[in-house]
Amino acid sequence: MINKLMREIQKKNAPIVVGLDPTMKFIPESVKKNAFSVYGETLQGAGEAIWQFNKEIVDAIYELVPAVKPQIAMYEQFGIEGLIAYKKTVDYCKSKGLVVIGDIKRGDIGSTSTAYAVGHLGKVQVGSESYAPFDEDFATVNPYLGTDGVKPFIDVCKEEKKGIFVLVKTSNPSSGEFQDRQIADANNRPLYEIVGEKVAEWGADCMGESYSYVGAVVGATYPEMGKILRQIMPKSLILVPGYGAQGGKGADLVHFFNADGLGAIVNSSRGIIAAYQNEKYKEKYTEANFADAAREAVLDMQKDIASALGTINV
Amino acid sequence: MINKLMREIQKKNAPIVVGLDPTMKFIPESVKKNAFSVYGETLQGAGEAIWQFNKEIVDAIYELVPAVKPQIAMYEQFGIEGLIAYKKTVDYCKSKGLVVIGDIKRGDIGSTSTAYAVGHLGKVQVGSESYAPFDEDFATVNPYLGTDGVKPFIDVCKEEKKGIFVLVKTSNPSSGEFQDRQIADANNRPLYEIVGEKVAEWGADCMGESYSYVGAVVGATYPEMGKILRQIMPKSLILVPGYGAQGGKGADLVHFFNADGLGAIVNSSRGIIAAYQNEKYKEKYTEANFADAAREAVLDMQKDIASALGTINV
Repeated sequence: MINKLMREIQKKNAPIVVGLDPTMKFIPESVKKNAFSVYGETLQGAGEAIWQFNKEIVDAIYELVPAVKPQIAMYEQFGIEGLIAYKKTVDYCKSKGLVVIGDIKRGDIGSTSTAYAVGHLGKVQVGSESYAPFDEDFATVNPYLGTDGVKPFIDVCKEEKKGIFVLVKTSNPSSGEFQDRQIADANNRPLYEIVGEKVAEWGADCMGESYSYVGAVVGATYPEMGKILRQIMPKSLILVPGYGAQGGKGADLVHFFNADGLGAIVNSSRGIIAAYQNEKYKEKYTEANFADAAREAVLDMQKDIASALGTINV
Repeated sequence: MINKLMREIQKKNAPIVVGLDPTMKFIPESVKKNAFSVYGETLQGAGEAIWQFNKEIVDAIYELVPAVKPQIAMYEQFGIEGLIAYKKTVDYCKSKGLVVIGDIKRGDIGSTSTAYAVGHLGKVQVGSESYAPFDEDFATVNPYLGTDGVKPFIDVCKEEKKGIFVLVKTSNPSSGEFQDRQIADANNRPLYEIVGEKVAEWGADCMGESYSYVGAVVGATYPEMGKILRQIMPKSLILVPGYGAQGGKGADLVHFFNADGLGAIVNSSRGIIAAYQNEKYKEKYTEANFADAAREAVLDMQKDIASALGTINV
């Protein structure tokens, strides 16, 4: 799957992943109204609104980008009905040829991590049958519990030829609270570098053609740290959140890429899916053509990144 | 909810939480056969088997213990159908007066953590209606993303009078990989102590009668660290996994308690729910009375802990 993802990034000339994080306030009133008219203002109604919204967004952007990243929390908040919308979204995106990165940030120990791994990336056994319940292509994983928590995901990835992105340095303001702590050893490095080294170590064991099955999450909001982490994990694809709404700029992104112009995939969520609400696109687009606004926002993001990388050939 | 939990621990004289982590291999063949005869060897069949198994266990133990801790991964691995069984289990346990600790180990940033928090502990808004989708009483939370990731849970806890347990020092063998790293500051302490201090700080802001809404997870397998963490977080209830099957012994547990004999709640999962498969209970119990074996295992655990605490009055 990492090979497919790298190929699609090159083919579409877009190291971009669209975050499908549909909160109620991003969904146009008309879409909600339609859903509520059938299911009422219920969890099922919310799930239906999310699904219809996603479908239109995906139809508008699937030719432009290699991947989408649904944030499961935004679905899980609506309980079972929200998770049904999540699963429909995953399946629909795959049917459109998109690589699906499940932003699930799971992480536990031993058999529990195995359960998450088979549920999201692998197959679970029921008697003599086996099923792939959520079946994303990639998943994000929290490393706090150490190798015990990550290894079960890697085992499933090897079997299924899928991948993970391990949280190394997250994009949020307080990510430094623990991640930036200086570790008292010979090199006195921050914790995120130690985690980065582990990612490189875990990844060396499961290489695709040019990049590993084990990638990393490093926030666009910390470009200088990205530069160092890029060197520590040369074979890991870096998933970069925090571009756009969170403050990360195109020019900051250059540090996350390798000399080959690859090595990073930049996420934008509300900057794309809620573009029609953005000052920049507000005049041209309304609720009625929210998906077209998303499409234009993807094209603008593509130009911004290409310009930063000095390869303006879009 | 922390007040209810503390009251129930004292009333039942049992600082015990039963981990409802039903893997297929713990569920008796007869239970699976019944479920599969109706739904086939499907995800729905697995969900039904889990639910029927849980129900019998809960009926056998609810009078003895204050709380249960369903591990959501064990349900999520069966997809939507597994999560329906999770939700049924949560509701049933609450109807029996049990405090439900959702072992979800979620953690993200800002609005995403808020989504997890409302989905599991709070209420989500759909138009003019609001719903409590999963509605556990407590949830476990991963701290790697810092205050941004934890604060949204605390906000919801204040509103709903519910609580969280933050992962501080986990019970698994490789938990030390990152958690034990010495931090280069004036005091040169390990990371888990720094996280423990944050837990105390977060918790000070939302106190129940004697303990805080913000508890901590510290593994029974690390009693010496438990001793220090007990002092760092005097007002946090410590959820202690790793007793029994993972190697933690009754005698080790004394360090996790305060002088008042309170302050910790010890989890056992397979040691209780799969007791009928255990050498110790195998002669007396079979698949047919697996729930009775679970009951006896709870009573034995209660004696083991009471004896360690020097308060043999069960």
